[in-house]
Amino acid sequence: MNNPSKRDEILAILRQVESGAVSADTALERLRFEPFEDLGYAKIDHHRTLRQGIGEVIYGQDKTPEQIAGILSSMREHGAHNVLITRISGETADLIAEMGIILEYHPIPRLGIAFPGRAARVGNIVVASGGTSDMAVCEETALTAETLGNNVVRIYDVGVAGLHRLLAHMEELTSARVIVAVAGMEGALAGVIGGLVSCPVIAVPTSIGYGANFGGLSALLSMLNTCACGVSVVNIDNGFGAGILASRINQMDGAA
Amino acid sequence: MNNPSKRDEILAILRQVESGAVSADTALERLRFEPFEDLGYAKIDHHRTLRQGIGEVIYGQDKTPEQIAGILSSMREHGAHNVLITRISGETADLIAEMGIILEYHPIPRLGIAFPGRAARVGNIVVASGGTSDMAVCEETALTAETLGNNVVRIYDVGVAGLHRLLAHMEELTSARVIVAVAGMEGALAGVIGGLVSCPVIAVPTSIGYGANFGGLSALLSMLNTCACGVSVVNIDNGFGAGILASRINQMDGAA
Amino acid sequence: MNNPSKRDEILAILRQVESGAVSADTALERLRFEPFEDLGYAKIDHHRTLRQGIGEVIYGQDKTPEQIAGILSSMREHGAHNVLITRISGETADLIAEMGIILEYHPIPRLGIAFPGRAARVGNIVVASGGTSDMAVCEETALTAETLGNNVVRIYDVGVAGLHRLLAHMEELTSARVIVAVAGMEGALAGVIGGLVSCPVIAVPTSIGYGANFGGLSALLSMLNTCACGVSVVNIDNGFGAGILASRINQMDGAA
Amino acid sequence: MNNPSKRDEILAILRQVESGAVSADTALERLRFEPFEDLGYAKIDHHRTLRQGIGEVIYGQDKTPEQIAGILSSMREHGAHNVLITRISGETADLIAEMGIILEYHPIPRLGIAFPGRAARVGNIVVASGGTSDMAVCEETALTAETLGNNVVRIYDVGVAGLHRLLAHMEELTSARVIVAVAGMEGALAGVIGGLVSCPVIAVPTSIGYGANFGGLSALLSMLNTCACGVSVVNIDNGFGAGILASRINQMDGAA
Amino acid sequence: MNNPSKRDEILAILRQVESGAVSADTALERLRFEPFEDLGYAKIDHHRTLRQGIGEVIYGQDKTPEQIAGILSSMREHGAHNVLITRISGETADLIAEMGIILEYHPIPRLGIAFPGRAARVGNIVVASGGTSDMAVCEETALTAETLGNNVVRIYDVGVAGLHRLLAHMEELTSARVIVAVAGMEGALAGVIGGLVSCPVIAVPTSIGYGANFGGLSALLSMLNTCACGVSVVNIDNGFGAGILASRINQMDGAA
Amino acid sequence: MNNPSKRDEILAILRQVESGAVSADTALERLRFEPFEDLGYAKIDHHRTLRQGIGEVIYGQDKTPEQIAGILSSMREHGAHNVLITRISGETADLIAEMGIILEYHPIPRLGIAFPGRAARVGNIVVASGGTSDMAVCEETALTAETLGNNVVRIYDVGVAGLHRLLAHMEELTSARVIVAVAGMEGALAGVIGGLVSCPVIAVPTSIGYGANFGGLSALLSMLNTCACGVSVVNIDNGFGAGILASRINQMDGAA
Amino acid sequence: MNNPSKRDEILAILRQVESGAVSADTALERLRFEPFEDLGYAKIDHHRTLRQGIGEVIYGQDKTPEQIAGILSSMREHGAHNVLITRISGETADLIAEMGIILEYHPIPRLGIAFPGRAARVGNIVVASGGTSDMAVCEETALTAETLGNNVVRIYDVGVAGLHRLLAHMEELTSARVIVAVAGMEGALAGVIGGLVSCPVIAVPTSIGYGANFGGLSALLSMLNTCACGVSVVNIDNGFGAGILASRINQMDGAA
Amino acid sequence: MNNPSKRDEILAILRQVESGAVSADTALERLRFEPFEDLGYAKIDHHRTLRQGIGEVIYGQDKTPEQIAGILSSMREHGAHNVLITRISGETADLIAEMGIILEYHPIPRLGIAFPGRAARVGNIVVASGGTSDMAVCEETALTAETLGNNVVRIYDVGVAGLHRLLAHMEELTSARVIVAVAGMEGALAGVIGGLVSCPVIAVPTSIGYGANFGGLSALLSMLNTCACGVSVVNIDNGFGAGILASRINQMDGAA
Repeated sequence: MNNPSKRDEILAILRQVESGAVSADTALERLRFEPFEDLGYAKIDHHRTLRQGIGEVIYGQDKTPEQIAGILSSMREHGAHNVLITRISGETADLIAEMGIILEYHPIPRLGIAFPGRAARVGNIVVASGGTSDMAVCEETALTAETLGNNVVRIYDVGVAGLHRLLAHMEELTSARVIVAVAGMEGALAGVIGGLVSCPVIAVPTSIGYGANFGGLSALLSMLNTCACGVSVVNIDNGFGAGILASRINQMDGAA
Repeated sequence: MNNPSKRDEILAILRQVESGAVSADTALERLRFEPFEDLGYAKIDHHRTLRQGIGEVIYGQDKTPEQIAGILSSMREHGAHNVLITRISGETADLIAEMGIILEYHPIPRLGIAFPGRAARVGNIVVASGGTSDMAVCEETALTAETLGNNVVRIYDVGVAGLHRLLAHMEELTSARVIVAVAGMEGALAGVIGGLVSCPVIAVPTSIGYGANFGGLSALLSMLNTCACGVSVVNIDNGFGAGILASRINQMDGAA
Repeated sequence: MNNPSKRDEILAILRQVESGAVSADTALERLRFEPFEDLGYAKIDHHRTLRQGIGEVIYGQDKTPEQIAGILSSMREHGAHNVLITRISGETADLIAEMGIILEYHPIPRLGIAFPGRAARVGNIVVASGGTSDMAVCEETALTAETLGNNVVRIYDVGVAGLHRLLAHMEELTSARVIVAVAGMEGALAGVIGGLVSCPVIAVPTSIGYGANFGGLSALLSMLNTCACGVSVVNIDNGFGAGILASRINQMDGAA
Repeated sequence: MNNPSKRDEILAILRQVESGAVSADTALERLRFEPFEDLGYAKIDHHRTLRQGIGEVIYGQDKTPEQIAGILSSMREHGAHNVLITRISGETADLIAEMGIILEYHPIPRLGIAFPGRAARVGNIVVASGGTSDMAVCEETALTAETLGNNVVRIYDVGVAGLHRLLAHMEELTSARVIVAVAGMEGALAGVIGGLVSCPVIAVPTSIGYGANFGGLSALLSMLNTCACGVSVVNIDNGFGAGILASRINQMDGAA
Repeated sequence: MNNPSKRDEILAILRQVESGAVSADTALERLRFEPFEDLGYAKIDHHRTLRQGIGEVIYGQDKTPEQIAGILSSMREHGAHNVLITRISGETADLIAEMGIILEYHPIPRLGIAFPGRAARVGNIVVASGGTSDMAVCEETALTAETLGNNVVRIYDVGVAGLHRLLAHMEELTSARVIVAVAGMEGALAGVIGGLVSCPVIAVPTSIGYGANFGGLSALLSMLNTCACGVSVVNIDNGFGAGILASRINQMDGAA
Repeated sequence: MNNPSKRDEILAILRQVESGAVSADTALERLRFEPFEDLGYAKIDHHRTLRQGIGEVIYGQDKTPEQIAGILSSMREHGAHNVLITRISGETADLIAEMGIILEYHPIPRLGIAFPGRAARVGNIVVASGGTSDMAVCEETALTAETLGNNVVRIYDVGVAGLHRLLAHMEELTSARVIVAVAGMEGALAGVIGGLVSCPVIAVPTSIGYGANFGGLSALLSMLNTCACGVSVVNIDNGFGAGILASRINQMDGAA
Repeated sequence: MNNPSKRDEILAILRQVESGAVSADTALERLRFEPFEDLGYAKIDHHRTLRQGIGEVIYGQDKTPEQIAGILSSMREHGAHNVLITRISGETADLIAEMGIILEYHPIPRLGIAFPGRAARVGNIVVASGGTSDMAVCEETALTAETLGNNVVRIYDVGVAGLHRLLAHMEELTSARVIVAVAGMEGALAGVIGGLVSCPVIAVPTSIGYGANFGGLSALLSMLNTCACGVSVVNIDNGFGAGILASRINQMDGAA
Repeated sequence: MNNPSKRDEILAILRQVESGAVSADTALERLRFEPFEDLGYAKIDHHRTLRQGIGEVIYGQDKTPEQIAGILSSMREHGAHNVLITRISGETADLIAEMGIILEYHPIPRLGIAFPGRAARVGNIVVASGGTSDMAVCEETALTAETLGNNVVRIYDVGVAGLHRLLAHMEELTSARVIVAVAGMEGALAGVIGGLVSCPVIAVPTSIGYGANFGGLSALLSMLNTCACGVSVVNIDNGFGAGILASRINQMDGAA
């Protein structure tokens, strides 16, 4: 599953120069690491699609529907599928679809999946949340992970202020390969789960709350300071990042 | 147990003027709210001793042994006992004792009790802590509360990263009249306890930790943002303040 | 008024297994701490209603009218009344009412009370505010406390910049069992009241102000740093939390 | 490698009650989740040793040599080995050794390993650092991971301001199963590595730097905001936590 | 110009009791410091109007037109004039005027002056600003000071990045009795002026700017840290407060 | 290219007084440093146009179309051309154009150039950006620099999370005289470029991002803490300032 | 008392050029604003002594005894007296005295007064403090003001948590021309005093406190946010600055 | 003076492979960007010495004398001279000298120059400071720049609170090719200088100050927010970085 050695790739090019099959000038071009396509407003990395099983993800927030559709069309020509577009409105999704892009849209996490195709799913990722208000971030994680071919179990609204709701799910928690703990406000869910299980826990602070939560700072600091082992943290509201990382851990091969 | 009405006190003085027993000028002096003694470097409120059951508490940190002994001597003359002196070193305590003040000294919370005398203890306060490093703050709370005549149960090292350690104490927790939850780092203990019980919970963030705890900020924000009901927060490391407040709540009469 | 011992509940279930009245598998289900109902988007804790005198409180801010009505309907079937719904708009309240839920709506604190029924009121809670702009937070506190069966006295617009306005209310202040001090800007009200009375004071910083108040931070820090005894703090603008805590303290039985 | 299901354990106890082999009262004791030993100043969780392959880790910073030796003696009786003691001085290590505890001490990370015994090592963890000043944190990570039975490759002083130093290690980087990226100052190392590899990357901000690094805040924020996929963050200077998490990920079985 | 001694007022009341002219109970009422009128939503201090030359100032931001008009009507009955209403919109001003209140409205600082009447103006206050964007705050200061009877000289757009613009006004600056320096962004104007003159300088940071000005924090910190003598600071954007203080200093009598 | 010595200018005036050509009073007026025109709402510095090759730049954000047109008309009379107006909307630009001002408008950076005239371009400035979302800031820089007579090479979307995209541009980077590195989120681009080149690098943090980027703070701190040599930083989103500075450095004469 | 007009000074020089009494070149030298002496490590402004009644104040913290003595000797030659040296240790003071400088040293505020000579004192400044720990800052203010020729009344340890202590001093407070309010922790003293008096109040936040006072930030924000009129703020612990400003206000002439 | 094109270097190696002069495997090694020496605790980049005129700079703060001497010895063998070692104590400097390294040590900036040799100096850099306390940072800048072959003019103690001290140096300021403005506290010096000159200004905030300067934050924010053109900022106290950058700008060739 790991990255094929860059070293071999470069050596291969050099051997072609050595054999005369390729000129020095051509090699120079090729040695510019990896091919990508330059649309002016964006550079698309088609190799990433092939190598890592996930194509260029599009952070949709600051792009026009035209820009997104342009990127998607280029990717489609290179055979991309299951391309994730994060943080787009329903209006943008509709406009992209009208331009002929097949797009599955999920309104709660404001997430699109272009050229969708169901992949086989492996392993076991649990996505747990502190409250119902965290659902948008949770679903961004869960859909990302599912799109990348992972089994996902959702356990929502199990915040630590009602501990029995969480403990009722001990079985799902202890059978997970990796857990994503999503919480705003005090952000204690990650640490409590971290103390109950022995698998890696990815903590996602959310900006849900008010007053002294300061846009998610309270949950962020709480999660960084947990004394539970095996917990690490991603950016506030970064459900997508948690989904990618959870997928990578879940799909690990056994260690030699 | 509540403050005797200030109104009655003022009215009594006015009635004495009305009856001619006291002159207007004398009354003016008396009406300057409450008597206190001015030592130059400090103003001692002897009435507080009588009214609230606890005399002038001495915040020892920035005072010389001579200043502390001076305040204590003046208080002793007004019959004070069980005077708390917070945040003093063992050396300062020894120096004060050498000046003839009877002083019980507790090195972990760096707390002195001058003119000690065991009061009858009532009710039931639980002091719970996240880790052994929080013990200084916990003991400041517990000793303050005991000095003020409260029964105190100590439950230490029950942080949320090992939830079973906390849950093993459910019985003590649910039988408390008020709980003081002391925790540094992620500070989640207060919220978890708040969700398990229905009595008031006083949260004390501590500065224990490192890195992104920023001197106790992480625990403070976490505790302020808990969604558990019945939790309120005092200043970072303020074990003394939590002890006073816990005493007040524990010693409440029944509501009419 | 305290939580019935969880230990007894569990022991009772185990005794039923011992006697053969209940199978091990059934007991396992029951031992999952406490029953709650899972609506998918929320988990409702019906036991809390019975045990603590207050049902599941609904934090309305991020929920649709449909979700709120769904939760309320489920609670109604379990006999809930006086259910508080915080931070909902008048439009949401109207939509919920149109779905057949009996709802008393208070526009200033944006608070709804579903299935209202007047409870007997006991004790004496004072809610004091620094300025008229803090009224929404104050009313959230006062209405919460009244709904939970407490007598509430309102003393508004008594900020410390005009001290005589506060001192004119000494009698109400000194006769309170617990005081909630609500203030934005400099937030000094809590400390000043804390120095005048001997009952517990719950400080609520508000986000009212501008410039260097940084969304309530100035009042929050001021309140945490008071040297008055008996003061603790809840989150910025958390009138509801202050109301719950004040109710718990006000309804304390006398200590044994 | 995962946690044996808590459910089965509880069911087994309940079946014993059902069969009459164990009384309800005894079962209640057993059901208090997990056994631990209470030394007064600390609660030792002996089960954790067995279950997770790592015993109670001792955060040494605020403990006396006597407390640490006491905890270690108790753990030794339960067969613990390779117990990590973080953040202790050489003097403390000497004192503990004088009390008869076999202790391997590493001065740079100020880390002790009690009852050391070399475990078989598996997999491949890379620990990379931005500068030589980050070495204490790096070694805390590397020694923790090695003690837990992982192969560790160290790549130090490869900060992004001299990119060629990092790119010279592409081969080690791309063959890692998990990478720990340790950096202070601008903290960009984690994001750059995250863009070069497809395995999980654990970012450790350090407090190394001056001025506007604000005790590690600059590196922390930088790492949280990386747009590279697969990167998560632990607390500032938390080399130990990164080592534990890296070990868990490295020792993952293959997904089913 | 100073506050008439409260002591004399109280003594006078006490003398009336002594002489039998007033009963003790009546005196108690009077001793409640100062008369004010309670409108429910606000407490109006009519004495302040008489004593300080400025009536109750109305912070308009969070009040309805009805509330403002109610307060103004009550004040009018007590003879108030030149009442300042800060931070109200033109719409609100129009509505108040329609209710029959005579109101002079200034749109740039969003300031109203009810029952306006030109007072004699004394002394010499300079209001200087860094940029044209600070004009709203400047005008709030200048109009407040003029309404209170002070001569005001306006020197706008003289920020330190074009020092010659400021130095061209040396004559006005050195002849001022007090200067109000208003600046956003780097906020250096106050310190530069403070070094050029020997009169008191009141610094007003504004929220004008972007990026790392963090809502006025940059100007605030800059102004607090000036090493020029005689400079003090008010809250961000607090033009009104600066105007009041400048008036008090400008109207000082000569010292005995 | 440097500022003509102010000393010479002043000496010339003094010599005219010496010779009787100019009276003392007239000289005083002239010595008030530099002429500017006072429009009431703004002071226009016509000398700056002549001396520095760039006229008064207009920060458009808080000005009305009328104010901007007024300033421009006055400048036009003094022969200004290529006047930059930053942060204005398309509507404002249209209104200004309708008032007869020749205005070239660029919608992405919301930048206007009044009285445009193409200057000869010299040197070589590279503007590089981390992501497509940073384009508005980049274009503000690039257009400013081009208007001031510099050759500009744009290299966009070369963030460090895909290092090969950046390395593909090594040739452009190493042939630049000065580089402007624009990045939000983790802000690592400036430090990575700083390590690859030996020319001055101007870092521009942007507010692009979410969560723990705190409005650009993460990129700002990252850039300030880079250990790459030759990097300095301007305010968040300050593309204009970076353009001016890059122009000054690019247009340096050779050192004597 | 105000600065003599700079304009007149410059005009006089120009007139001398006009009359031929002074050459243009000599005039240029004189026009360099004001004479000062350059010691290499410091530039001494002898004119300030004459013009403002206070010589160059020496911020002692980062200077060697030799540097301080050097500055003082130079000043002595120009007739300076009553020169304040802030923040020097007793050891430094002794060393300076040994070099033959007559120095009055005050250990609590760590303040020296060189070449002391008692000035006549005028007016009435009150310095009030919240607690005894604030005394160093208070004395820096009081001694500065006395050295500059002002009458000072000290009212210490009158924090708002014991309001009667403050109210007992109403007479002194209302008879002050200007009040300096010094407080740490919650910093409420300034606002409460500001509401009781009508003279200018200078607020000095101190760094006294612990936990969430964050080095004086809590008191600073509280003081900036007061809604009392007439209050302005200087830097944390800046007793010297408050003393200078209080002196300037106290010594105001009556307004024309 | 610019970096020789990396492209040419790589192409040359490829041409050697093409011609058979070098094998593919050897080329691979060479293509690993640039040679450096790995001492285990540090990686030394000998090419940097040749290419940029300055060798590996050693950040001395966290290194032992042995480590520093080891690095220096290795560099000496590659012909390095004028190697800067920043932030080392006099003791460390003595120890290094005892190991036979020729070292010129400057105690104020705590800076060493190993293998010193006077280079020809060109151009004109002005280093200006706000106060004498900033001298350590200033000298770090000045000595760095001089070591790199630049003429440096020092103008110290010209803070904006005494503007005439700065204006007396207009001639030096306007004749500089680049200015480094060093200031703590309010940090206004950079903006004021930026408005007076037309050359690039590098602003260095220092941590000098107290209270609300928050370790240099006040000066940093002030400098970032200046509206003067041509100013950019380096890290707090980063005198070395400013010296390097000033050298690069000062030594620019004329633009084509």
